[in-house]
Amino acid sequence: GVLGSGDFARSLAVRLVCSGFRVVVGSRNPKRKASLFPAAAEVTFQAEAVKKADVIFVAIFREHYSTLCDLADVLVGKILVDVSNNTEINHHKESNAEYLASLFPACTVVKGFNVVSAWTLQSGARDGNKQVLICSNNQEAKRIVAEIAQIMGFTPVDMGCMSSACEIENIPLRLLPAWKIPIFLALGLFLCFFTYNLIRQVIHPYIREQKNKLYKIPIEVVNTTLPCVSYVMLSLVYLPGVLAACSQLYYGTKYRRFPDWLDQWLQHRKQIGLLSFFCAALHAVYSLCLPMRRSHRYLLIETAVKQAVEKKMTIWVEEEVWRMEIYISVGIIALGLLSLLAITSLPSIANSLNWREFSFIQ
Amino acid sequence: GVLGSGDFARSLAVRLVCSGFRVVVGSRNPKRKASLFPAAAEVTFQAEAVKKADVIFVAIFREHYSTLCDLADVLVGKILVDVSNNTEINHHKESNAEYLASLFPACTVVKGFNVVSAWTLQSGARDGNKQVLICSNNQEAKRIVAEIAQIMGFTPVDMGCMSSACEIENIPLRLLPAWKIPIFLALGLFLCFFTYNLIRQVIHPYIREQKNKLYKIPIEVVNTTLPCVSYVMLSLVYLPGVLAACSQLYYGTKYRRFPDWLDQWLQHRKQIGLLSFFCAALHAVYSLCLPMRRSHRYLLIETAVKQAVEKKMTIWVEEEVWRMEIYISVGIIALGLLSLLAITSLPSIANSLNWREFSFIQ
Amino acid sequence: GVLGSGDFARSLAVRLVCSGFRVVVGSRNPKRKASLFPAAAEVTFQAEAVKKADVIFVAIFREHYSTLCDLADVLVGKILVDVSNNTEINHHKESNAEYLASLFPACTVVKGFNVVSAWTLQSGARDGNKQVLICSNNQEAKRIVAEIAQIMGFTPVDMGCMSSACEIENIPLRLLPAWKIPIFLALGLFLCFFTYNLIRQVIHPYIREQKNKLYKIPIEVVNTTLPCVSYVMLSLVYLPGVLAACSQLYYGTKYRRFPDWLDQWLQHRKQIGLLSFFCAALHAVYSLCLPMRRSHRYLLIETAVKQAVEKKMTIWVEEEVWRMEIYISVGIIALGLLSLLAITSLPSIANSLNWREFSFIQ
Repeated sequence: GVLGSGDFARSLAVRLVCSGFRVVVGSRNPKRKASLFPAAAEVTFQAEAVKKADVIFVAIFREHYSTLCDLADVLVGKILVDVSNNTEINHHKESNAEYLASLFPACTVVKGFNVVSAWTLQSGARDGNKQVLICSNNQEAKRIVAEIAQIMGFTPVDMGCMSSACEIENIPLRLLPAWKIPIFLALGLFLCFFTYNLIRQVIHPYIREQKNKLYKIPIEVVNTTLPCVSYVMLSLVYLPGVLAACSQLYYGTKYRRFPDWLDQWLQHRKQIGLLSFFCAALHAVYSLCLPMRRSHRYLLIETAVKQAVEKKMTIWVEEEVWRMEIYISVGIIALGLLSLLAITSLPSIANSLNWREFSFIQ
Repeated sequence: GVLGSGDFARSLAVRLVCSGFRVVVGSRNPKRKASLFPAAAEVTFQAEAVKKADVIFVAIFREHYSTLCDLADVLVGKILVDVSNNTEINHHKESNAEYLASLFPACTVVKGFNVVSAWTLQSGARDGNKQVLICSNNQEAKRIVAEIAQIMGFTPVDMGCMSSACEIENIPLRLLPAWKIPIFLALGLFLCFFTYNLIRQVIHPYIREQKNKLYKIPIEVVNTTLPCVSYVMLSLVYLPGVLAACSQLYYGTKYRRFPDWLDQWLQHRKQIGLLSFFCAALHAVYSLCLPMRRSHRYLLIETAVKQAVEKKMTIWVEEEVWRMEIYISVGIIALGLLSLLAITSLPSIANSLNWREFSFIQ
Repeated sequence: GVLGSGDFARSLAVRLVCSGFRVVVGSRNPKRKASLFPAAAEVTFQAEAVKKADVIFVAIFREHYSTLCDLADVLVGKILVDVSNNTEINHHKESNAEYLASLFPACTVVKGFNVVSAWTLQSGARDGNKQVLICSNNQEAKRIVAEIAQIMGFTPVDMGCMSSACEIENIPLRLLPAWKIPIFLALGLFLCFFTYNLIRQVIHPYIREQKNKLYKIPIEVVNTTLPCVSYVMLSLVYLPGVLAACSQLYYGTKYRRFPDWLDQWLQHRKQIGLLSFFCAALHAVYSLCLPMRRSHRYLLIETAVKQAVEKKMTIWVEEEVWRMEIYISVGIIALGLLSLLAITSLPSIANSLNWREFSFIQ
């Protein structure tokens, strides 16, 4: 059974019908709404629909839950699936599912399907996340809803008892929260170092020697900026651990909470580290592209022609040769090690490591 | 208990014995077959074996299920595990497991272990997929078989009720079905663009100016072909979404099914996108290799020598310099963005994103 | 309830309190220990604590389990969670959890939380592995403990019945056991080939012609060593399969166990293959860096100047050109194919392939 006639209710009905279920839709105005639903779904009055169904998807807004109170008698013993979402994180004191459960104590409430979009529901789970997070205080009801999700082509994930409902309802509102601070940090650092390098490599030679080196901006200036950002970010990954250890030594206990800013910082280490790796990888690609550039070619030919005309043999500066060989070789090794760190932060790899292995690699 | 004496039955017996289970094998000719099984497994007549076992693996072909009907009396109340596979996708109307359940209504049938090869069974789950997909209408029987799989070293995955059996039976027959069309598409595009570039870069100069540029085929022609393929593939990822939106606007409803070809197209977007990324990555590697080639070196020295001999200074063509710098820098950024898309299509990353984050990144 | 006052017990109490549970800590000296625990946790005598709690975490060493025997009467019917770890793999004959269960037959014992470090417990599951492996012979107890883990922010994983306890207890002691042999193998091979290449490319020219080519060590010698290691490792991936097939043909049966060394070898193929890929990838990066080096630049200019001064035109050696073009292009294709192999060995990708697809790709 589906209560409601919005976008989500219709997509739900489409999918349930496609998966071979018998669907009854409950509406306050069944005649007008019937055309919106697939022909195989029976559209009738709410009370009628509830009587015919064992599992009822409540696809209406939280604000209208109380309008269902007239149906309280027919709802007794039914499984209600709360599919609702909020518009803000932690909008209400209690989660929608818990509110629904408090309105209908004689029903079994299951939270689920809210992490799925109407579009995914309608067209079937194709790419992206196929998981449907489910929670309920009733094991049997949870199992039934999980099996419905399975047949609909989703992967049900048991999230435990009703107290997880709040967390599940917050998930669709999340937009990479852990990445915001690290990304702004990286952008800020990039801007600072870019300005510095721009002044040093382009503006200063122009003012002093009137040399036009503007062509260096897109690649060379960016390429000297990236490793600076990468280094600072990498040091920001290891710094909070040291600060935390100092704080524990200072207070003489491991069981005192860290100050909030340190706690936040400790939580963002993974993201900061991955951005550091991203900058390092970009730096590697930029560096590898240097000899491909037309300007590199021109400078090379220019030097050769100049020396040939002046009949001057090349001076093999041993120190410069060694410096470059060692720069490059140390750079490759550093990138190789950072890659290992980045690979172990993939969820499926991290889950196959115990914490001893994880901290060994870190 | 194991019924059958084929390859799979023997591997199953080997593994069960190794995992510490007491195994009884039921055979119609126990004396002749006993030597095929490990010494620790008791090989006896079918009826005898069934009596002694609570969980019975039915490792015989679907065609011979009916020969078990004589055992119907002793099988009452036992758990039958259907491990059979078909030779064609959707070969029979009902799945093997459902057919077995219809023959023995007094037994509890569980589908499982068919996704595992005899080789994996025998040698233990080492690399590759360790999952054993299990479904049944009986929770308790499913739990018991899942625990057996766990002890045997596999990862049991609950696939819900018996209606999933058909899906589970089709899995081992699958051979990357979603990749076939995209791969042929990429190969076709590659051939077309390769021919065009071959004519333009090698055959045309040969006919017009008698210049032998055959050496360009393995790297330069391939390298100008790859980005063309990549671009066309990338546009084929975003085109069907636009067409789908147009179709919805034209028909004025979101709830009309798309035509089959568009539906197929929408389903293959992920694979097309990944192939596009693969071509782009190859293009990057090919481009980076350009300055390593002997031919590049020869051309460079040639130009330098020519200019030195003619005492002509290099002309620094500002436009060419800028064009190359910008090409390379935009190329790196594009590859970096495509990498992010490719990484988010890894199953374990996709599962940690909600659909809002997923569509934000896309 | 938490029994014990060590590091783990305190971290457990901190986390349980933070997750909203009412916590009772049982100690033999509650007055002295109370200050160690968060204020919200009630610290009292052991018998008192046990009476008040339904689920009791036993955070004491295996050696002291017997000291709990005095509490046997009050423990009847309670759920005991064994969180202990050993200091050696397979230290005792039976797992700690099974030993606890044998001491208190009237209790339900659940193994769990031992794979989590005290630090992760205290600070909440942030990065790395969030899984808590749980096993028990009692379904209901397992479910209750799984729900507690869920609420504490971990991902409970059902590992089946008590016989898995031994395996779970060994997990935290593991330190990449499958990688040890392959890594030493790779290092050994690297040393051999490095010595050979060092003699050939640096020492030999020095002795014969007094040429100082020491600058080649960090990049060129390493870069000729890496592909040798990679090739030998790759052949070591495919060799044991052939040997295994030969052994089966020789003995005329598929059901004879392989000798131990072959079995070990077969089990390490994945790690050997990944190290082979790692060497190949490093070789690619090193090769791409060659034209960036100062020495490359000097040699190029030197040749150009020499030729210009001698007014000698470049000789375009067709064979050398072709050889290089084909080397590079075959190298790129080989690296592309190896990358596919490496990607399919990611756990989340491997789990989405059936064995037919997996062996097709291999």
